[in-house]
Amino acid sequence: MVAIPSRGLSQKHEGFRELLENNYQKRNLVHLTSGSVVPLLKNSVWLVLRGMVKLGAVSVHGDELLLGLAGPNEPFGEPFSSVEAYEAVTLTDCDLICLTMAEIEQSPQLAIAMMEAVGTRYRQAEYMLSLLGLRRVEERVRGFLELLAQDYGQSCNEGLRLNLRLTHQDMASALSTTRVTVTRVIGLLRDEGWLKIDPQRHLVISHLPRRSH
Amino acid sequence: MVAIPSRGLSQKHEGFRELLENNYQKRNLVHLTSGSVVPLLKNSVWLVLRGMVKLGAVSVHGDELLLGLAGPNEPFGEPFSSVEAYEAVTLTDCDLICLTMAEIEQSPQLAIAMMEAVGTRYRQAEYMLSLLGLRRVEERVRGFLELLAQDYGQSCNEGLRLNLRLTHQDMASALSTTRVTVTRVIGLLRDEGWLKIDPQRHLVISHLPRRSH
Repeated sequence: MVAIPSRGLSQKHEGFRELLENNYQKRNLVHLTSGSVVPLLKNSVWLVLRGMVKLGAVSVHGDELLLGLAGPNEPFGEPFSSVEAYEAVTLTDCDLICLTMAEIEQSPQLAIAMMEAVGTRYRQAEYMLSLLGLRRVEERVRGFLELLAQDYGQSCNEGLRLNLRLTHQDMASALSTTRVTVTRVIGLLRDEGWLKIDPQRHLVISHLPRRSH
Repeated sequence: MVAIPSRGLSQKHEGFRELLENNYQKRNLVHLTSGSVVPLLKNSVWLVLRGMVKLGAVSVHGDELLLGLAGPNEPFGEPFSSVEAYEAVTLTDCDLICLTMAEIEQSPQLAIAMMEAVGTRYRQAEYMLSLLGLRRVEERVRGFLELLAQDYGQSCNEGLRLNLRLTHQDMASALSTTRVTVTRVIGLLRDEGWLKIDPQRHLVISHLPRRSH
């Protein structure tokens, strides 16, 4: 199970960022430091300009659920979720912008960009659903890391580096497994050479995901 | 874990249908009978006008995965998925319309409607992710049926009736469990009176989901 790389969307993403920065400069950007809770406002969409936000919830039994990550040019917020006890927490220092649905509906350019951006989030959520249908936790972890590497990784000599810091517990919460199992699988993937950990403790996926499309 | 009912979107949905029917009458609607595979075309979005489509994939091990359902005014297609071996199959007789991304981008009205429609799909996928994080299969089944009832159910004297026919295997494929377990849980929910099966073999959720918002 391998994520299909986003199809030439990076140029569009650049356009989206320009559009936002040109039109919304007057509005104060919201800067949040790593580990901040982002307040979710009714009928308002948050857009990540820089950084990474963790989307999750707490189950009725108190288990933490990781439901997705929102990176640059990706939206999240109240209009796009129906999960109870939903929470958005910054994983890194972030620049965010908050737009009301009314503002988006008034700007065709923004609506088009937002449609594609919501599409990106939908693809990620659906891909995570497909991972959760895999029986072996090793395949889930591998698929999840491939997804992150393709969506947010940075090219380096040894492959794709993930600059975000997810704990093993975060990964376990995303993949319906336990922290102990994630730690064991990450160890196996390191032993295989599929994964490296660089001196800054960032994960590097050294065997680039094969590109199926 | 209870799905928050969609917030007054039904009016918008009616507007979307009108928009589509007024503007795209000239194009042939595609009628597909129940059980048909919908061809997924590059850069093209399918929109359900009437009926219900099952979105899924086959895992590397040959397991069927149910990744979502698309009902009236909901989109699906190649631009919104990155899952391998993806398949869309009609669950009922359907009227569908196919739009290219270029067409959508040329119509601000359409882009706004589509942004909201993709948002609906994203909410569903994320909600299903939250269900998969629940430990007890009974809670997953209950949450899944609540989701379906709220999104697609029809009011009747005894509660909300689901006119779509999902097999126990379909539900198992959506909830990472086995057909046998789903059958057992459905039996328990019937015994409790939470669920009824009407003479047409449709599920009726007789205890309406409590509305949390």
